[in-house]
Amino acid sequence: MDLGLLYSGGKDSTLAGLLLEDFYDVTLVTATFGVTDAHEHARRTADHLGFEFETVELDGDVAEQAVEQMVEDGYPRNGIQQVHLHALEVVADMEFDAVADGTRRDDRVPSVSRAQAQSLEDRHKVDYIVPLAGFGRGAVDSLVDETLDVTVGPSEQIPKADYEDELRELLVREYGDDAVADVFPDHTQTYVNGLN
Amino acid sequence: MDLGLLYSGGKDSTLAGLLLEDFYDVTLVTATFGVTDAHEHARRTADHLGFEFETVELDGDVAEQAVEQMVEDGYPRNGIQQVHLHALEVVADMEFDAVADGTRRDDRVPSVSRAQAQSLEDRHKVDYIVPLAGFGRGAVDSLVDETLDVTVGPSEQIPKADYEDELRELLVREYGDDAVADVFPDHTQTYVNGLN
Repeated sequence: MDLGLLYSGGKDSTLAGLLLEDFYDVTLVTATFGVTDAHEHARRTADHLGFEFETVELDGDVAEQAVEQMVEDGYPRNGIQQVHLHALEVVADMEFDAVADGTRRDDRVPSVSRAQAQSLEDRHKVDYIVPLAGFGRGAVDSLVDETLDVTVGPSEQIPKADYEDELRELLVREYGDDAVADVFPDHTQTYVNGLN
Repeated sequence: MDLGLLYSGGKDSTLAGLLLEDFYDVTLVTATFGVTDAHEHARRTADHLGFEFETVELDGDVAEQAVEQMVEDGYPRNGIQQVHLHALEVVADMEFDAVADGTRRDDRVPSVSRAQAQSLEDRHKVDYIVPLAGFGRGAVDSLVDETLDVTVGPSEQIPKADYEDELRELLVREYGDDAVADVFPDHTQTYVNGLN
């Protein structure tokens, strides 16, 4: 069974891939608005881990709306949520039997309700799988420690690999440097170098 | 890391074990009230699959209350839920770093809320993991087809392996054969013979 996993290059989606790889033919899929080449960081990690890798193009209007929403809110949650749901729809439209993401039990965002999951599955005739939905923060941290070689630091210094980098870039272009600091205060990021 | 997985011998908890075995030292733990030797079926499957196996004794008062509740309700949901939560508490008190169960995304029962999960983790200093929490019915069915050799049939004919068998036996003893049919109409069960 072919599975497309929405992939950010971070620890959660990497762990999700490792949990699924014995059961599915996993392709890591990094979504991009074509704004930056951040997805190349994800490709490097995917290659390193021996996963198939693809990028997929998202709708630029969704990025514009998300950035507007973030500035209006003063925090990124709702904007990120919109982009995540859009990205899932796009991956579900590809030729996979199943789609997945790296959302954890304790994530406030992105979060996909049971009804949204069922709707995605019914409309696209795919299974939607969230391998970390039953893992809390402590369990994920322990698994990452045991399994992955990661670099952790502030978002400005860690290579980011998915559309979040592009949303930040759009914020800078349209609203200036301060907008990023307003919307994403003290945001840390992890980059997966490889396996431990 | 040592993990105790609450194990019924059925497809869901078996699949949960397979999902976790690359990441934890998994022991399958079948809970028993000491009413029947149904747990021997679970031991056989566990041996067959090469997992460590233990049984653990539950509090008989919880069984009595659950059976009363089921008869009062006319359906098993609330009684099963009480026993499941009690069994999780007991396994969380053993010497494991993490406890897990085979609950799926679409299960109405047993169901452990995020708050209950956090409370279990905090009180027992363990991680509580639900590997199938992010898998819907379609995904579980596909994985079972690909992975396991199972026998499916009505509960009366399939060897049952966990406390549900014992609750049925208590129903018969205390309320007669009809009580089981009233509380569990058309209940089907799966027994895992081994890997495909």
